[in-house]
Amino acid sequence: MPRDPRYDLLFQPVQIGPKVARNRFFQVPHASGMTNAAPHVRAAFRETKAEGGWAVVSTGACSIHPSSDDSPFPCATMWDAADLRSHALMTEAAHRHGALAAIELWHGGAAAVNRTTRHAPLSPSGVPWMATHVGFMSSARPKVMDAQDIRDLIRWHAEAAVMAERAGFDILYVYAGMGYLPYQFLLSDYNHRTDDYGGSVRNRVRLVEQLIDAVREATHGRCAVALRMSMQELRARPSETAPSEAHEVIGHLKNAPDLFDVKMDYSATDCAASRYTAEGSHEPVVDFLKTITDKPVVGVGRFTSPDTMVSMVRRGVLDLIGGARPSIADPFLPKKIEEGRVEDIRECIGCNMCISSWHDGVWVRCTQNPTAGEEWRRGWHPEVVRKDGKGQVLVVGAGPAGLEAALTLARRGHQVALADRAREFGGRLRWESRLPGLNQWHRVVDYRMGQLQKLPNVSLYPESALSAEDVRDFGADHVVIATGARWLPHLCGANELPSVPLEAPRVYTPDDIAAGVVPEGPVAVFDYDNYYLGSAIAEHLAGQGRAVTYITTAGAAAAWGFMTNEQPLVHQSFAKKGIGLRTLEVVTGFDGERLHLAQIFSGEAREMAARSLVIVGYRAGGSALHEALAGTMPRERLHLTGDALAPGAIVHAVYQGHKTARELGLTAAEAVPRRDAPFAPRDFQMPEAAE
Amino acid sequence: MPRDPRYDLLFQPVQIGPKVARNRFFQVPHASGMTNAAPHVRAAFRETKAEGGWAVVSTGACSIHPSSDDSPFPCATMWDAADLRSHALMTEAAHRHGALAAIELWHGGAAAVNRTTRHAPLSPSGVPWMATHVGFMSSARPKVMDAQDIRDLIRWHAEAAVMAERAGFDILYVYAGMGYLPYQFLLSDYNHRTDDYGGSVRNRVRLVEQLIDAVREATHGRCAVALRMSMQELRARPSETAPSEAHEVIGHLKNAPDLFDVKMDYSATDCAASRYTAEGSHEPVVDFLKTITDKPVVGVGRFTSPDTMVSMVRRGVLDLIGGARPSIADPFLPKKIEEGRVEDIRECIGCNMCISSWHDGVWVRCTQNPTAGEEWRRGWHPEVVRKDGKGQVLVVGAGPAGLEAALTLARRGHQVALADRAREFGGRLRWESRLPGLNQWHRVVDYRMGQLQKLPNVSLYPESALSAEDVRDFGADHVVIATGARWLPHLCGANELPSVPLEAPRVYTPDDIAAGVVPEGPVAVFDYDNYYLGSAIAEHLAGQGRAVTYITTAGAAAAWGFMTNEQPLVHQSFAKKGIGLRTLEVVTGFDGERLHLAQIFSGEAREMAARSLVIVGYRAGGSALHEALAGTMPRERLHLTGDALAPGAIVHAVYQGHKTARELGLTAAEAVPRRDAPFAPRDFQMPEAAE
Repeated sequence: MPRDPRYDLLFQPVQIGPKVARNRFFQVPHASGMTNAAPHVRAAFRETKAEGGWAVVSTGACSIHPSSDDSPFPCATMWDAADLRSHALMTEAAHRHGALAAIELWHGGAAAVNRTTRHAPLSPSGVPWMATHVGFMSSARPKVMDAQDIRDLIRWHAEAAVMAERAGFDILYVYAGMGYLPYQFLLSDYNHRTDDYGGSVRNRVRLVEQLIDAVREATHGRCAVALRMSMQELRARPSETAPSEAHEVIGHLKNAPDLFDVKMDYSATDCAASRYTAEGSHEPVVDFLKTITDKPVVGVGRFTSPDTMVSMVRRGVLDLIGGARPSIADPFLPKKIEEGRVEDIRECIGCNMCISSWHDGVWVRCTQNPTAGEEWRRGWHPEVVRKDGKGQVLVVGAGPAGLEAALTLARRGHQVALADRAREFGGRLRWESRLPGLNQWHRVVDYRMGQLQKLPNVSLYPESALSAEDVRDFGADHVVIATGARWLPHLCGANELPSVPLEAPRVYTPDDIAAGVVPEGPVAVFDYDNYYLGSAIAEHLAGQGRAVTYITTAGAAAAWGFMTNEQPLVHQSFAKKGIGLRTLEVVTGFDGERLHLAQIFSGEAREMAARSLVIVGYRAGGSALHEALAGTMPRERLHLTGDALAPGAIVHAVYQGHKTARELGLTAAEAVPRRDAPFAPRDFQMPEAAE
Repeated sequence: MPRDPRYDLLFQPVQIGPKVARNRFFQVPHASGMTNAAPHVRAAFRETKAEGGWAVVSTGACSIHPSSDDSPFPCATMWDAADLRSHALMTEAAHRHGALAAIELWHGGAAAVNRTTRHAPLSPSGVPWMATHVGFMSSARPKVMDAQDIRDLIRWHAEAAVMAERAGFDILYVYAGMGYLPYQFLLSDYNHRTDDYGGSVRNRVRLVEQLIDAVREATHGRCAVALRMSMQELRARPSETAPSEAHEVIGHLKNAPDLFDVKMDYSATDCAASRYTAEGSHEPVVDFLKTITDKPVVGVGRFTSPDTMVSMVRRGVLDLIGGARPSIADPFLPKKIEEGRVEDIRECIGCNMCISSWHDGVWVRCTQNPTAGEEWRRGWHPEVVRKDGKGQVLVVGAGPAGLEAALTLARRGHQVALADRAREFGGRLRWESRLPGLNQWHRVVDYRMGQLQKLPNVSLYPESALSAEDVRDFGADHVVIATGARWLPHLCGANELPSVPLEAPRVYTPDDIAAGVVPEGPVAVFDYDNYYLGSAIAEHLAGQGRAVTYITTAGAAAAWGFMTNEQPLVHQSFAKKGIGLRTLEVVTGFDGERLHLAQIFSGEAREMAARSLVIVGYRAGGSALHEALAGTMPRERLHLTGDALAPGAIVHAVYQGHKTARELGLTAAEAVPRRDAPFAPRDFQMPEAAE
């Protein structure tokens, strides 16, 4: 099917200084979590995007000096010649597919507290960065940079730029965003200096300007120089000479870089979860760039719709369509638009599991794309599977794991039968995606159902509750059990372990609410799962007019939602919806009228009135069907997967389903993943200098 | 000075299965944070302990299989032959100094959620581990192990044991503690199995027994096999046949291992901060072992007093004196006792910065021993410095940084003058160590003062406030400014940055309280520093009879105290002392009577009555003296260090002071640290097999 001509615009080349991007799809810098410690894993992860049609693929933040050490958060390094070879793997991979490679040179300043290198953190004026943020907090406060420190910072950028060019990068970023060091000079909250680098906007811009010049000069104009900047706070600050400080800053810098990459300031606004924030949310902050500068502009906004992308270009907001999350969910997004296969796009659901990986300090994971991070290690390509499937596979359960397993098995060439007891496929997502804010999560089902329905070797059996005998009678060569998990009404012990089921009137689990129970109010929701579901149920019940109090063992609502940038917005939503919040408490008893609580650390007893209690805590996997079949058929033909194997988030279920399908029929030895290791100084060979 | 004969007992050798420990000092397994990614850093860190007289030095937890992946928390691995060489560096280092080397073979089970390897976590019965604990939490729940999984686990132990012997280890640990997998089989909270591995204590012990056998058989009895077990929960569980389940477990296992290493169950009780817990706190839980078994027993309890150690042996509690924290604070503790230099011991202060490093996911740091982790990277030995000091150094400020700088400079051979405006040396610790629970922190001062007073090349100048002119007149070759930081009365903005100073009656900072201000009650303590000081001040003021409410931007009191295991105990102390707790709030205003607050996420406004407000938030470094001197003397002769350079915890100040002293007079090139890298499969050479 040919491409819709209205998308032709997206495939025009764009000049970026001395380089040309082959189209408008630009994978902007984003964290992979992989670091220089896993150079092959990282290169292969980025390579699939180049192969998938992105004109530019970028690194994540790449520290230019040991005084910018973000450990334990993963970040790349360009500290010495030994790092160069690690990056060269990625630039070679990008070039192999006709993409440009970009590197984000990064100094975190006060945000990088140097937990391993133990340098005193650097800052314009000694102001710490989000020092109260659990997960980022540290007791180390930054030093005030003196004139020599500023000269050093400029020199480190130049030195890193020289190494970056040698490593093969085409575009070199100066990074003045997200609270990092150059941004700290731009924003008066951080910058109280009285020298040439502080005070007026003109002075606060000086460092960024000098960094851009230094990077350009160090590479003699052969590389493009990009400026990445956060605009949210600056846009909100009044200026005497312009509509905002952001306008004034861009006015000073309009001719300085070859490309502007513009974004928000905080993880929670920059990488906002779909639960509370729609596609294109950056536009109101970054929409003015092209009224001031003639340089190309790239920006993000979780774009997955080609119509939205075309609109961003036509309306003069952006020249290049930035992608971070959508490029992880579908590295082949550009190619699918190019080839007229828009309906094949595996759209990002905005669950933010990817950014949670960075907060968690590990490799990126993606709910929609289980191959992310596994390209080199397990040899999983996001679009290609080995076409070696023989015989028939029966998949029981059409939730996220079952759908993914069925699709991947069908692509391998197996005859696939997919059965579910429900009329509608989707498992937990049938109900969960109808909870407030979670509708985009249904894309997990939509993508897979769309693909399955195209395949001739797939039979779908809705409303088919199968007994062990049914399964055996079916006679498939392999049986995959993906029947999900169930929620249990267990209390939580003082040692943070599930204890005993609570037996009392009007005690419910999420499964009861999913089945349509509308509890009598006032309702208490006791959450010791602490991811999204407890707070989403609280919002759901408040929407049904119930008086709701949300109680958690943790210090904040949706405690794990810190990882996915949901947490602040959950609290805002609670305030708006009048949902009560009690933290650091466990439920110790309930009689249908009074709820007994204890402070989690001190044990101090408390109580409150409630007519119903929803417990969101503990899930059991397992499967009666699996138990009934085990022992009656060979172990290698029966496969338990997804939440039935080990209850988890949807990302875990999809991953397990994919793994089960990829590894079905393989020997244990064939399934052993490769183990990466960094290039060490001792095996480093310096490439020829470009000069 | 000869050793006190009453300590001779500590230097008796102890038979451990086929091996002999040369004395009773046993560095038990503890996290270093270094992992196989930094093998030289790790080997050198452990080597100083062997050199310092510990008869056994151990690794930290060493994962035996990718299904036990604790990322982002650091852990060692023994997964394949490539890991072997990394560990061999450490065993060679231990043997060089006559110590035995022990390895802690580890499978985390449900506690290891495999964020990178992405295996489904393993568990006896699907019960998650501390799933509500911010910092550990994950949305992945474990699978229930089947019979094949149990056979695999035993085989992985055997395979790791074989590799460990080849790597040169003498003692191989089976690790059934701290909520990890074998422990999960022991404790009924985790183990609901109905097969041979669940139900009765006899059944629950079976796996541990089989693991011990497997490790012993795999190494043909040539290595000693140790069992490390957590006893706290089991000791509290009644048994029908013994005083407790712990007694019953040990009864079954009494002849199984060659050594028992016994401990508590939770980080907060096992590695308890001195703030709330005294030396020897494990004794009530582990005191019965030797009444049941004839095998040697090792245990810990933050022992630094040789008299306490002797008492533990004489009273039949322990055979070997386990050390983790004290061995970090002073790797030469045994040697100092052996040589009759007890007063030279650098005693652990129990601040738990070391365990915070693990929680933080980085290399171990120690307040008392700034060389910890820097032995290889920077070539810093804990007891030896280059004797190259020439000329005179004036150190201004005798807080932690100044004391450490002065001591290290004096050891280098410089003539050192140390001046402080106060009569008593110690800086912030003069007051802070008098706050509830912090008295042991004064050891930072005691150790350094004790050492300084012995050195002939040191002059101490108390009550000496020096002007820039005084300093110049003094005419030292180098001047080190270590004048500390001051607290500021700034509010905290919604973006978690300090905003403007609060101007209102009865607003105080910690400096005011240190100066003796006793605020009018009721007092509000607003903490956005979130380490120990805010909660300690709340306790101090409650002790003065004030009604106190503690308010924090975070979700719990002493939010960073999660890292140091203080957090639960702070809450218990608040409950006991009647201190009110308000979380997730910022102070927005105060008029001397009403305090205005806002919920940190939603901005919802609240208020409360208060007569005084103590703000514990923002510190400024810098130094008027340094500013007055800068420009009037050569840059290379004037050194700013400690909190005056970059405000931090005491660990940062001591480190900076040490670094300043070590690097004084060095060129920048001479001060560049080495960079470690792991052994990769491609440069691995398999050592000869032992068989």
